[in-house]
Amino acid sequence: MFETAELNRQIDRKDYKKQLPELRAELLQAQFALSKTNTPVIIIVSGIDGAGRGDVVNALNEWLDTRGLETIAIDSLTDEESERPYYWRFWRSLPARGRIGVFFGGWYVEPIVKTAYQKMDTVQFNEAMTHIRRFETMLVEDGALILKFWLHLSQKEQHKRLKKLETNPHTKRSVSKRDWKHADLYEQFVKTAEQAIRHTDSGNAPWLLVEATDWCYRNLTVAHTVLETLRKHLDAQSKSNTEQVAATQFPPIQSSDSKTILDTVDLSQKLRSKDYRKELETYQGKLHRLAWAAYEKKCSTIIVFEGWDAGGKGGAIRRITQAMDARLYRVISSAAPTDEERAHHYLWRFWRHIARAGRVTIYDRSWYGRVLVERVEGFAQEKEWQRAYLEINDFEEQLVKHGSIILKFWLHISQDEQLRRFKEREKIPYKQHKITEEDWRNREKWENYSLAVNEMVARTSTDFAPWMLVAGDDKRFARVQVLKTMCKYLEKALD
Amino acid sequence: MFETAELNRQIDRKDYKKQLPELRAELLQAQFALSKTNTPVIIIVSGIDGAGRGDVVNALNEWLDTRGLETIAIDSLTDEESERPYYWRFWRSLPARGRIGVFFGGWYVEPIVKTAYQKMDTVQFNEAMTHIRRFETMLVEDGALILKFWLHLSQKEQHKRLKKLETNPHTKRSVSKRDWKHADLYEQFVKTAEQAIRHTDSGNAPWLLVEATDWCYRNLTVAHTVLETLRKHLDAQSKSNTEQVAATQFPPIQSSDSKTILDTVDLSQKLRSKDYRKELETYQGKLHRLAWAAYEKKCSTIIVFEGWDAGGKGGAIRRITQAMDARLYRVISSAAPTDEERAHHYLWRFWRHIARAGRVTIYDRSWYGRVLVERVEGFAQEKEWQRAYLEINDFEEQLVKHGSIILKFWLHISQDEQLRRFKEREKIPYKQHKITEEDWRNREKWENYSLAVNEMVARTSTDFAPWMLVAGDDKRFARVQVLKTMCKYLEKALD
Repeated sequence: MFETAELNRQIDRKDYKKQLPELRAELLQAQFALSKTNTPVIIIVSGIDGAGRGDVVNALNEWLDTRGLETIAIDSLTDEESERPYYWRFWRSLPARGRIGVFFGGWYVEPIVKTAYQKMDTVQFNEAMTHIRRFETMLVEDGALILKFWLHLSQKEQHKRLKKLETNPHTKRSVSKRDWKHADLYEQFVKTAEQAIRHTDSGNAPWLLVEATDWCYRNLTVAHTVLETLRKHLDAQSKSNTEQVAATQFPPIQSSDSKTILDTVDLSQKLRSKDYRKELETYQGKLHRLAWAAYEKKCSTIIVFEGWDAGGKGGAIRRITQAMDARLYRVISSAAPTDEERAHHYLWRFWRHIARAGRVTIYDRSWYGRVLVERVEGFAQEKEWQRAYLEINDFEEQLVKHGSIILKFWLHISQDEQLRRFKEREKIPYKQHKITEEDWRNREKWENYSLAVNEMVARTSTDFAPWMLVAGDDKRFARVQVLKTMCKYLEKALD
Repeated sequence: MFETAELNRQIDRKDYKKQLPELRAELLQAQFALSKTNTPVIIIVSGIDGAGRGDVVNALNEWLDTRGLETIAIDSLTDEESERPYYWRFWRSLPARGRIGVFFGGWYVEPIVKTAYQKMDTVQFNEAMTHIRRFETMLVEDGALILKFWLHLSQKEQHKRLKKLETNPHTKRSVSKRDWKHADLYEQFVKTAEQAIRHTDSGNAPWLLVEATDWCYRNLTVAHTVLETLRKHLDAQSKSNTEQVAATQFPPIQSSDSKTILDTVDLSQKLRSKDYRKELETYQGKLHRLAWAAYEKKCSTIIVFEGWDAGGKGGAIRRITQAMDARLYRVISSAAPTDEERAHHYLWRFWRHIARAGRVTIYDRSWYGRVLVERVEGFAQEKEWQRAYLEINDFEEQLVKHGSIILKFWLHISQDEQLRRFKEREKIPYKQHKITEEDWRNREKWENYSLAVNEMVARTSTDFAPWMLVAGDDKRFARVQVLKTMCKYLEKALD
């Protein structure tokens, strides 16, 4: 693969200096045009030690307007990072729409270095590559532009370069023992890099091999590639803008049979007031102990609440939080996204709230809004919510693999019960704020919502993060059911 | 002091249950009204172990709408926190305007616990209290509402309470060895708490002592106090709204003598092209080594660039970044604040960008916008920019005390030179994006800006964070001057 990057390509320094001013002006123009779009740009600069990744990153910082640019070097792992799933560190540094993020190796560093050092086996490496592919695909589908550069040097050239850097007192410090150690492992590094590139050189996030022997050639190649890619993207965007507007018109959900999984829930289940009080005490006490045990074991719990308006989410959540020490839990209510959140992939605002290890995070509505309200109301395009099922499963799998427990509750009630509660809410002063015009409007789309719920359960109830449909017509029954289920799963996980 | 909280106040459980529904409705109404305002609410719940801080926090979570509420328990210190100034952990969890943040002890925990354990002496304790006072004053002046509760128990009551918690299997776990150890130090804790309260019981952030023997009394007292304080604040706000609008009209800066500190800068200083190239190489090489040395010593550097439009900030910054490894620095350009940023104190958006230890952060314009553009253009009210000098000095002092180096450069040019550069920018394609109508408008206010700069230097050039006025008419001279200065200060600090 790398033969094509050992051809001794060179560019005369004078030519370089002559070409640069115009190229820089064009780059700035493209960046400026891009900043007006919804596109976040991710540029990954990877390569062999000594090939000048730092110089290229510096050059990009020099050519482009730094006001729209961030450089992200993933550094030594902090404990805030290690207490969260692996990709959290990347999510937190993704550029916003209209901005450019230049990553120093990005998500490729760890799998390549570990594999070259034989600290990661083939199975793990392949898994990491699959994960990268999915991550990049997700970002690209959301509108991101990804460019990946691999700066190549032959082994001989690398040796020469490191020696030269070392003899110059100004650059001496940037050559570490680690670099020489890597150089000794040249073969392994190149082999691993080749595999990484092969695995992840997809049409939507291509790799660009750059011969790095001559710095003028290297820099100009990077600059031209960035420019052309930005331009192509801008052209494509301006063409597709008109099409997209049409696509947001979303037809109502059709189904030949309106029966859904929700019809299987036995809404007649009830709990007597006396039994309720007894069971509430039992399970709240149990949960109290389990939450502390989970904290000590650094096992995180994520509880998602979705359900019909007035389905009893708030009440169920309060019965959980009453049982726990307030230091252990956090309730996240999905409000309208802020502008920073809108400037990222829709999952970003959930990633940013992931708690440190051992805590309980309760979501009062969640990322499922994408396939529920956003789908039914047409706020998300079909292709957006269609791919959300996979993205969500992926997200939850990462959380579970990192050691979290995920439980998802759908609080189900009948249409009649909802009506009764709406009317009740309108009467009780401290419940009035809970009932809005929107609630009444949503109620009219009951059938569409039912079908969306059905599909959500079908596509996202996994063995690692199951959906629990809770019969909610009787509040007491529902609350105890939720507590019981939480206790059961926590007990199992902590065993 | 605490005698008043040992009077055995009690409320009948029946009374409690009777009063609660209405109280809750009123609390929710007040919270709702508050969410429409610009007020962030900070509620600190502190007190003796066993007095029920957790119960009170839980109760607040139950009574108020959790969609506008966050509970913040400062937990074990993460390394991301320890690599930044002490208050970073509090800044990152401050509630946004219109929201309520309930703090578990907040900034009072560490000084009180450490002092009670004799791990903090009186001088340090007093310093911590002074700091708290300033921090709270700053937030209140920015519109925050701060309520601080101290839940008190007599020693006898505390003992009884802990015993009781321990015998109940549900709550057993919440009593730790640490609690008993604290109980043994009851006298010290109470003494320290009394001092802390005395030091920080200011009119704008008062303490409320609550007798916590009877939970009904305790909870009702907290609820009533929160309600009344919110109401009073809402009333006051609606009254002052009209006055504030008038106050934003800001008169031009007057001065009997237009001479400023900027007139002392000798703008005729020049550097020949040949000397420039030599010196550039020397100091860039030096800076390269120093940046690595600072990284190894975990010494952070913060460089602030302010200056006239076209003063050469960008060019000077590029000469710095060229010299450094791209992993070591970050350039932060002050763009318009996002809505999340606008929902906090104006320093919040700078606190959030503070880098981990050992990095170089370069600000292309900075928090000084408050006393420059925001002052001159009338974007900030007079009282806002007037208090900013103190707030900024405080902010910088915290950074320096944490081990950072701060250097602040004002890039000065003459009005003629600015005109020349504006015209040049309009001609060169890749510089056109740098010149806007606003630049021409700002130019007309040269004198006002000069006076604002003069006052800024007078009030914020401290020995720990000095201002450097750089003669910028000759770009070469300015760039080398900046590099030289950086090298000098870094060298001194690393010695």
